[in-house]
Amino acid sequence: MAAKDEIETTTRFSPRFDEHGLVTCVVTDAGDGTVLMLAHMNADAITRTRESGEAWFWSRSRQALWRKGETSGNTLRVEEFLVDCDQDAVLLKVRVGGKGIACHTGRRSCFYRRLPLGGNQAEPLAFIG
Amino acid sequence: MAAKDEIETTTRFSPRFDEHGLVTCVVTDAGDGTVLMLAHMNADAITRTRESGEAWFWSRSRQALWRKGETSGNTLRVEEFLVDCDQDAVLLKVRVGGKGIACHTGRRSCFYRRLPLGGNQAEPLAFIG
Repeated sequence: MAAKDEIETTTRFSPRFDEHGLVTCVVTDAGDGTVLMLAHMNADAITRTRESGEAWFWSRSRQALWRKGETSGNTLRVEEFLVDCDQDAVLLKVRVGGKGIACHTGRRSCFYRRLPLGGNQAEPLAFIG
Repeated sequence: MAAKDEIETTTRFSPRFDEHGLVTCVVTDAGDGTVLMLAHMNADAITRTRESGEAWFWSRSRQALWRKGETSGNTLRVEEFLVDCDQDAVLLKVRVGGKGIACHTGRRSCFYRRLPLGGNQAEPLAFIG
């Protein structure tokens, strides 16, 4: 593995896969920047995404490669493919196809629940919206 | 563990930690939505973040809890703490203190390199910016 400094400064893409062969992928809307979802990519998903311009992921639950939206129609057209400093996370800025829904629950974004902040919350902790 | 449907619809926060006791955390700027960094939280980091309103993480490389910015001054004041559908990822919308820099390389965001898209790229793959 390349030295830490080299990973951060190199112009060469050399993803640091975890023990399962995956990097984490954040997906945002290329229009307004909303964080839509988080998924994982293996080397094959990265290649297919880069070559096709549509987001492919690795499903940890199904242990299978999947093209996002292949059944729902809510595909993700990739406008930018960014990589973080230590190359173990990527960021896709996308345009959502179909109904514009990224979450399998039918919501636009997977991040639809909010936790209260502050030191005097009841346990078990409940969402506030 | 609760059933999948219950995890998605419950009003109760019940994080699904991975085999290392961690959830993934995306950090965005509460002002303009820029994705700043990606980190990990264990139960203790979640509690400290929620109670203090400042972001705490678990460092996988140092195997230690850390308050972001404790040495650099670039602390993260949390404005919103969101949780995703299957409760294995969280999203913090923050105001960055200090010099407004989230990445340890001195850049505002960790996602400062971009990959080309399209099917005819040379290998090894080089960043384009």
